[in-house]
Amino acid sequence: MRCVNLRKKEMATPSRIGLAGLAVMGQNLALNIAEKGFPISVYNRTTSKVDETVERAKNEGNLPLYGFHDPKSFINSLQKPRVVIMLVKAGAPVDQTIETLSVYLEKGDCIIDGGNEWYENTERRQKAMAEKGLLYLGMGVSGGEEGARNGPSMMPGGSFEAYKYIEDILLKVAAQVPDSGPCVTYIGKAGSGNFVKMVHNGIEYGDMQLIAESYDVLKSVGKLSNEELHEVFSEWNKGELLSFLIEITADIFGIKDDKGDGHLVDKVLDKTGMKGTGKWTVQQAADLSVAAPTIAASLDSRFLSGLKEERVEAAKVFKSGGVSDILSDQVVDKKKLIDDVRKALYASKICSYAQGMNLIRAKSVEQGWDLKLGELARIWKGGCIIRAIFLDRIKQAYDRNPDLANLLVDPEFAKEMIERQSAWRRVVCLAINSGISTPGMSSSLAYFDTYRRGRLPANLVQAQRDYFGAHTYERTDIPGSFHTEWFKLAKASKI
Amino acid sequence: MRCVNLRKKEMATPSRIGLAGLAVMGQNLALNIAEKGFPISVYNRTTSKVDETVERAKNEGNLPLYGFHDPKSFINSLQKPRVVIMLVKAGAPVDQTIETLSVYLEKGDCIIDGGNEWYENTERRQKAMAEKGLLYLGMGVSGGEEGARNGPSMMPGGSFEAYKYIEDILLKVAAQVPDSGPCVTYIGKAGSGNFVKMVHNGIEYGDMQLIAESYDVLKSVGKLSNEELHEVFSEWNKGELLSFLIEITADIFGIKDDKGDGHLVDKVLDKTGMKGTGKWTVQQAADLSVAAPTIAASLDSRFLSGLKEERVEAAKVFKSGGVSDILSDQVVDKKKLIDDVRKALYASKICSYAQGMNLIRAKSVEQGWDLKLGELARIWKGGCIIRAIFLDRIKQAYDRNPDLANLLVDPEFAKEMIERQSAWRRVVCLAINSGISTPGMSSSLAYFDTYRRGRLPANLVQAQRDYFGAHTYERTDIPGSFHTEWFKLAKASKI
Repeated sequence: MRCVNLRKKEMATPSRIGLAGLAVMGQNLALNIAEKGFPISVYNRTTSKVDETVERAKNEGNLPLYGFHDPKSFINSLQKPRVVIMLVKAGAPVDQTIETLSVYLEKGDCIIDGGNEWYENTERRQKAMAEKGLLYLGMGVSGGEEGARNGPSMMPGGSFEAYKYIEDILLKVAAQVPDSGPCVTYIGKAGSGNFVKMVHNGIEYGDMQLIAESYDVLKSVGKLSNEELHEVFSEWNKGELLSFLIEITADIFGIKDDKGDGHLVDKVLDKTGMKGTGKWTVQQAADLSVAAPTIAASLDSRFLSGLKEERVEAAKVFKSGGVSDILSDQVVDKKKLIDDVRKALYASKICSYAQGMNLIRAKSVEQGWDLKLGELARIWKGGCIIRAIFLDRIKQAYDRNPDLANLLVDPEFAKEMIERQSAWRRVVCLAINSGISTPGMSSSLAYFDTYRRGRLPANLVQAQRDYFGAHTYERTDIPGSFHTEWFKLAKASKI
Repeated sequence: MRCVNLRKKEMATPSRIGLAGLAVMGQNLALNIAEKGFPISVYNRTTSKVDETVERAKNEGNLPLYGFHDPKSFINSLQKPRVVIMLVKAGAPVDQTIETLSVYLEKGDCIIDGGNEWYENTERRQKAMAEKGLLYLGMGVSGGEEGARNGPSMMPGGSFEAYKYIEDILLKVAAQVPDSGPCVTYIGKAGSGNFVKMVHNGIEYGDMQLIAESYDVLKSVGKLSNEELHEVFSEWNKGELLSFLIEITADIFGIKDDKGDGHLVDKVLDKTGMKGTGKWTVQQAADLSVAAPTIAASLDSRFLSGLKEERVEAAKVFKSGGVSDILSDQVVDKKKLIDDVRKALYASKICSYAQGMNLIRAKSVEQGWDLKLGELARIWKGGCIIRAIFLDRIKQAYDRNPDLANLLVDPEFAKEMIERQSAWRRVVCLAINSGISTPGMSSSLAYFDTYRRGRLPANLVQAQRDYFGAHTYERTDIPGSFHTEWFKLAKASKI
């Protein structure tokens, strides 16, 4: 029997949409779609996943979800023009799934990739699909398993026609944010949906690293207990830092270890995994000449966290070096420190988002995508991992001035930076003097202090380049390009 | 007339080697080779460059250099197996030159690319050449115009057979360093020569940025004049910092503006150019999961230096923010500051080289190149832009332990780091409190403080990842991979 959950009378009514790839994300998104009243067909190569999803659909409210064990009947069960969302691993599995499904598709049908795919792969597939008369979308989906089930943030890019086919579904399936609507919009053409999701993930890396550094300073310097950290993050989640990541951080500090004494967080190994989007973000920033030091610092911190054994050895080498001694000497006003760290975290976060937004804009300009930064901030307000009240401020900044050169110079953000900078400098210096690294906070601060300076020491670098490589330089006072025989002049002056 | 400078009696003696591409670097390298007694033929598409080079060869000592206006007679003038060095722009011009020359080459002949080429392009060409029975080397050449003429550092990678053809030439043409020999060695197979040169350039970016930051702190906080800076860098060039870049920096501060009053360095616009190798280094580091924050900070600083107009605007926005006021309040002990900055620069430099070396090793392991890090430090001791007495210490560290995990934990370097860390922390904090950014120094310090810590706050990041994405985590006390239903536990605890 090919159709698992299709009763006879329903065979006459084709499904509105199909979903292929039934790992947890795929299952949850399919159930979400069904729950919103859109009949959906599902398919997976390993058929047990199909049955599992059908079973879940029954148990979670007898949802209109229909399972298929073979691709042909799966595709044939869909209303035309047919739309299939894929949620499979990026790379080769996507190509394989496309190959399997496209055999049965007809002109005007559409495939949507909901994974974290490299945007150029999506563009390659869009072209290949177009040759067959098929439409294609690369749609970033954020929110993890929970978001997929209850309302993710979605970033569809590619064929506008295809987007229009399913706009009604996406608008209902997405997270709903009061006053700003569903967390989905048509991002733009080509691979823009994947690109925006990639930068979203890079920003997510930055947020997580900044929170980890705040934790480190509060714990290592401030000597806060897990109970106190739970309180602090819960409190922070009521103010300007209100966000999903702060909320789950508060949760984490409240959870006891079920395999031993104390809190679970203390038993978690300090080695961080990663999946590629953070790396791509850093590489793209370099490619586009956009400084993104906070995101880069987050990536580097993950790399260094992975060198656990080397670090343990290095700690022994430097044990008697005098750094670790500093820590015990500090007398810290806890309340003041907590307040300072909150401000440092917030100021650093502004820098990180400024970098991410400028990276998206640089790509948009390069590719002619015409992306709307304020709209992106709006659809990130709910559903996704970086959802935060703070994103509304970003949206407002771009509403005030869509051509804003940098979030830092928006009048509101500038005011916030000025108010927080003393605390921020105190925290970074305290960490430095305590031997605690805050790569995310300190690179954010360096970004701020570099960006807001009219005159940098780059004149020396350019003079050096002209000295040894005749790369020429510009002058502050006279237009044009200049070259100086520095070596000859220096030699002459020495005689 | 095809042959420009070939007298009849010499027609019988073919040239030992050929060089194509006669911009300044190519001219200088050809003259260097001729000067060492190796008869050389030269060719350039724009023939005036050929005549120019021939003229220089006459003027610089009637050197055995022979110019050709067409590729066929150029190639036919070479002794077999023929070897041609190309010094043309990376990318398409290299492919064009190969196409032009290879028509006249025979099996066993060899082409050498002496430019800053992306290593994968070299590997692609090596394969294409091999199909025609031709040998190919990608050879990084460092030292700028002056080095090319008087002794560069050269990094040949690819066919070992081809290297052997010209080893005698390279050994004489390279910079000669007392006690450690000529600055050239066979790097390894495939594109390893280009890759090593790329990282060399990334390290060069780091050195230049760290020097610029030292200048900035001494000038902006310490209020040192250009005369004082000239003295300081001249003095530094007698000690542990002795190097080409410190030397030319001292020179630069000594040069007066010929178009106006004061020193030329103050008139140079603070906008830094770049050519790609720094960007590639940062992208490769991300690809190989190697933290290279100092090099990345140098690249970001160049990007931000380019935003001159935006920075001038931002400076206005933050003028009344209280940062610039801090500066004037500082009372600084100049002598102490100079000493501290020297130590901070040196400690940061160790971090930067540790990153570069580990990047090379990671690539070597990935590609099976079997590169010798100590040998690389040796051939960088002279000729190249990063030449420094310091490289001898790196060579010694790898002599002591070729498998050294990180330069920082070499006993000698560890001792130096411990001696300098207090000064280093003082300088970075002073800069932070003065609103002066030191992205290179502070990211180096963060690198040090991250690498030497046995326990990082990465446990929180991993807990977060498991919370929202079920990415699992390891434990400090029990082997295995774990997943916790954080959300459910947190929800339960709230009830």
